[in-house]
Amino acid sequence: METLEICKVGGNIIDNESLCRKFLNAFAKREEPKILVHGGGKIATKLAKDMGIETQMIEGRRVTNKKSLDVVTMVYAGLISKNIVAQLQANSCNAVGLCGADGNLIRASKRPTKPIDYGFVGDIDPTSVNTGFLKSLLVQNCCPVLNAINHDGGGQLLNTNADTIASTIAQALSNHYKVKLVLLFDKPGVLTNIEDESSVIPNINSETYPTLLADGVVHQGMIPKIENALKAAEAGVDSVVLSNPDYIIDDTKTGTVIKY
Amino acid sequence: METLEICKVGGNIIDNESLCRKFLNAFAKREEPKILVHGGGKIATKLAKDMGIETQMIEGRRVTNKKSLDVVTMVYAGLISKNIVAQLQANSCNAVGLCGADGNLIRASKRPTKPIDYGFVGDIDPTSVNTGFLKSLLVQNCCPVLNAINHDGGGQLLNTNADTIASTIAQALSNHYKVKLVLLFDKPGVLTNIEDESSVIPNINSETYPTLLADGVVHQGMIPKIENALKAAEAGVDSVVLSNPDYIIDDTKTGTVIKY
Repeated sequence: METLEICKVGGNIIDNESLCRKFLNAFAKREEPKILVHGGGKIATKLAKDMGIETQMIEGRRVTNKKSLDVVTMVYAGLISKNIVAQLQANSCNAVGLCGADGNLIRASKRPTKPIDYGFVGDIDPTSVNTGFLKSLLVQNCCPVLNAINHDGGGQLLNTNADTIASTIAQALSNHYKVKLVLLFDKPGVLTNIEDESSVIPNINSETYPTLLADGVVHQGMIPKIENALKAAEAGVDSVVLSNPDYIIDDTKTGTVIKY
Repeated sequence: METLEICKVGGNIIDNESLCRKFLNAFAKREEPKILVHGGGKIATKLAKDMGIETQMIEGRRVTNKKSLDVVTMVYAGLISKNIVAQLQANSCNAVGLCGADGNLIRASKRPTKPIDYGFVGDIDPTSVNTGFLKSLLVQNCCPVLNAINHDGGGQLLNTNADTIASTIAQALSNHYKVKLVLLFDKPGVLTNIEDESSVIPNINSETYPTLLADGVVHQGMIPKIENALKAAEAGVDSVVLSNPDYIIDDTKTGTVIKY
């Protein structure tokens, strides 16, 4: 099977204009087929504040009321998406910015309002993904640039965590491609010592992970990231890389490779 | 050649939620292939105001400085585009919301700053349009939903009048389709008496127009619309219809049909 790279970038890259440009210029040169998934960063929070809309968070998650949904739709699917696309196009990467409503790419279910009402938040699984439309773009050497906005199929836009979008798309496409999912954050990988950036664990798999966890080698904050990566690998994704933007910008750097 | 309908809607429809919904539900049922081009209406101006950005107009045209460009990118390519797409998807129309940067769909030139500096405004002509990508979507029964945002190919987003986008795309695709361009505004067509909505002129062509103009039958405000339509028809567009949303909502209504 052909290799497909799906790369997810978050706010730490989006919010830093010069880093974002460096990243995009390097990403544009990556071999095709490839997909970029981006988060939103602080721009949505700032815009909401400028508009007098309070951003409510519960357990680290944004509550998406009607006004907040409008803000994230504008920022993620408009401002950030189209500026990323223009920058990739300037580097000869034929990017196409899409939300999950476009081409019915991701059809989500609005999250139940109990026990916590997160508002217009969409829950998705690999069956939510229209792989046919994605493939039709990939075979044309288009690079889909995807964001957190999707829809319920009944006219309602919804918001989903961008890590979940990346992981779910990776799983859905793993029947068609050998998928490498690259999740970029602010550390060069999973560290044994959070203070020491050279303490990257090069490989984790479902057999070594329980020992790392039991021995307390893995830092608390990394546990959900690793477990989501293992889940994606178990569901068919060939490999998941956790690293920082240097993984793409400076091609020689490595991160933590998670396999099933 | 196959008939392609390209329909352009402006602020008078976008700003009116119930009219917009009625229009989209009816447009979804129109025969394929079809393209929707939408303007922005008052939402961008209101958002700019909420954000403390002054909207500067020169001779009825918006001056697009960096902040205004961000606003129109958010509103046109984000909020309006994605809500239109979700509503069309809810009516089984496989809509895909795209700006001119997506898939390098429209590559514009930044307008010269002399005699008037309109800021980040893009000038386009039919050679600016990537007809191949549009056709690849149309043959998949996707309905492209296009807005006023495009790019210069060097990483810069630009803003172009939505009527110009619709007319230019119509001209570019007239080598591949028998194009019917439908421009919807707030009147049922070109009227001989601006006070009387039943005074629609059913047909205008390049032979009858000079007489209508010389006799003062055509209202002042309509002259640019008619002349742009005649120009599009001369450049290969099969017919241009000027009408109001009822043309789509109530399929029996007619407008003014302009042919070369």
